Formats: sequence, C-alpha cells, structure tokens
Amino acid sequence: MLRYAAPLQRLIEELERLPGIGPKSAQRLAFHLLQRDIEELDALGTAIMRVKREIRFCAECYNYATAELCPICADLTRDRSVVCVVEHQSDVMALERAGEYRGLYHVLGGALSPIDGIGHSDLRIDELLSRAQRLRAQEVIIATSPTVEGDATAEYLRGLLAGPEGPRVTRIALGLPVGGDLDYADQVTIARAMRGRTMMGE
Amino acid sequence: MLRYAAPLQRLIEELERLPGIGPKSAQRLAFHLLQRDIEELDALGTAIMRVKREIRFCAECYNYATAELCPICADLTRDRSVVCVVEHQSDVMALERAGEYRGLYHVLGGALSPIDGIGHSDLRIDELLSRAQRLRAQEVIIATSPTVEGDATAEYLRGLLAGPEGPRVTRIALGLPVGGDLDYADQVTIARAMRGRTMMGE
Repeated sequence: MLRYAAPLQRLIEELERLPGIGPKSAQRLAFHLLQRDIEELDALGTAIMRVKREIRFCAECYNYATAELCPICADLTRDRSVVCVVEHQSDVMALERAGEYRGLYHVLGGALSPIDGIGHSDLRIDELLSRAQRLRAQEVIIATSPTVEGDATAEYLRGLLAGPEGPRVTRIALGLPVGGDLDYADQVTIARAMRGRTMMGE
Repeated sequence: MLRYAAPLQRLIEELERLPGIGPKSAQRLAFHLLQRDIEELDALGTAIMRVKREIRFCAECYNYATAELCPICADLTRDRSVVCVVEHQSDVMALERAGEYRGLYHVLGGALSPIDGIGHSDLRIDELLSRAQRLRAQEVIIATSPTVEGDATAEYLRGLLAGPEGPRVTRIALGLPVGGDLDYADQVTIARAMRGRTMMGE
C-alpha cells in the first residue's frame, strides 16, 4: 500500500490527469514542486485558476482575448481585407510565429467531421460568412489542417464563399506534412505554405 | 511579435519553469487547460498551492507528513528494530512500492559531497545516530543511491554506527544499476536488492 501524505497524493493525482504526464512523471513533478518556494507555487496555482476566468473569446474572430476584441482584431495596422480561417485558437499563434501574415483571422472551433457528429452549425461558419461580407474581404485564406476533415472543411467553405461577388478563396499551400497537425509544424514550413497558397477550384 | 492574451502568456511562462517541459509543451499544456472546466482547474491549482503549506517533515524520520509523525512511523505494525537510511523522501516511496520492507526509514536529506560543500552537519546524521540508539536498532540498512556520493556516505555511516554495542550495518544490494538513481529503478530490482543486502566491512 502506498503511503503518500494526503496533500502530496492529491497533487500527484491532479498532475496525472494532464496530457502526456504518466504516474511516474506526476510523482517527479510533485516532488519537484515540493522543493520550490511557496511564492512560486502560488504563482503557478494562480495562473492555472485565473486563465479560464480571465480569458474569453474575441467577439470578431473567436481567438482568445481579455477584452471585447483580441489583440489582432484590435490592431489597426492589420490588413482588414484578408481573413485567414483556422480550426483552433492555437493555430492562430502557430501562424503568428511564422511572421508571414498581416491580415485577420477567423477561428472555426474545429473541422467538419460527420463521424464525430460535427456539422455546419457546430462551427463558426455562419459567423465567417457574415463577417467576410461585412469586411468586404478581398481574400479568404483557408488554413484548416491538411487532414481529411480539414480538407473537406476547406472545400465546403469554398462552396459557401465563392461567387461572382465573393472574395478570392485560397488554401494554405500543402508544404505542410499531409496528415499532420498545423500546430506542430515548424515556422519555416508554415511561412512557405502561406506564401505558396493557391486558388481553390481551378 | 507574439500576441497571447496576458493570462495565457502568464500560464505558459509558469508551466515552462517545470522540469522537462519546454516552450512547446508548455503551450500545449496551457491550451489543454483552457479546455478544462473551471472546477478542474481549481482542483489542480489548489493542490499546487496547498501541498507545501500542508506538508511537513516527520519528527522521527523526516519523511513527508501531515501530522507529527509520517504514516510509516505512526504505523505500530512496522518493525521498529530495523531502520533503512535513504537520501530523499522520494526514495522512501520507491522502497515502499517494492513491498519488500516492513521496518522504519530515516531520510538523510542527501548524500555527502565535498565538491558541493555537503558535509556531516548538512545531513540528518546526528539524528540517525541518536535515533538508532534510542530504538536499540538491531539493523541499519543503508540504501543511499549506488553513486560515488551514495557509496561514500554509506561507508561513512558504517564507521559511525558500527561497534561492539552497535547495530548490524548492511548495504542494499547492488542489484541496482550502478551510477543510477534509486527513484528510477523498477520494483522487482528494488525488491531483489533489498533481499540481497550484505554485511558491511567484511
């Protein structure tokens, strides 16, 4: 029978629930944390408890924000005639790190996936359509991940956006490793993929 | 320039300070935490902030405890005539997991290391000597790690403990991989090493 002191046992169990952290890593982390100063533990604990309370979604693009608008939508120097559509908030940061793009974003909240029961109304697609119209967007770059679901979502969005009055609809170039996850790609690959984007439906 | 919302940036920076968690893992963890319920985040945050406040050292063996004595010292079914000496609190748990040992422990707080300036008075050696006498210990098993420092500490303790009136001083068998860290060893290896312990100075 294991005999950890109760607060230590509780900490280990909580740490084990984090992704990629097994029982052994959780123990190591817990013992490491016990060596730290109380002030440092408070800083970490507070950051964890505050993040969800203080962060909300940008009213425009659904990126993470602390105010009505996220820092990107609030930045008047960004090009408002281009909207880049991504699946998740973390993809926005992956693209920002590449430093290639100066337009706006739109976070869908995932990709279409009939198997998982994720359809049109589960994603922020209607919001994208009305926003593209409102902004009179010249171009919508679809940067969903190059997976089956991401590609299908891209095709679906092109069908909705394209038209004689509609914006140019482009797809981020598949310089990304196919089947991979956008957030895992390196910055150079992402920058090249942005530069090599191609017209859809040609 | 990166544009994380401030509470998210703060969380990522705090997570990056954990051992074995780089910038990319910290981001992944932070985004994962944002998906969780507030209740779950509070449980994790509270566990981190409480652990150091609620845990203290056992007055007898210096293992982690929430009361005056740790669960092992408070357990009257344990054999009080044997004391197993380890470097760290985490080593106690490594030995307990092996399920081979039913005596008491004594946590030194490290190993002698002249290079790092760690000498006799930096470890709980005097406490071990008086405790062994008080308990009239029949045997002291020295289970410091099989490293240069751990071996030197074992030899040093044997010199202090041995004597016509003193306890039998044994060393945990080097079934452990030499140069390794006790806390990393598997349970079977630890159990065999406990069983194969040998007399010191023969």
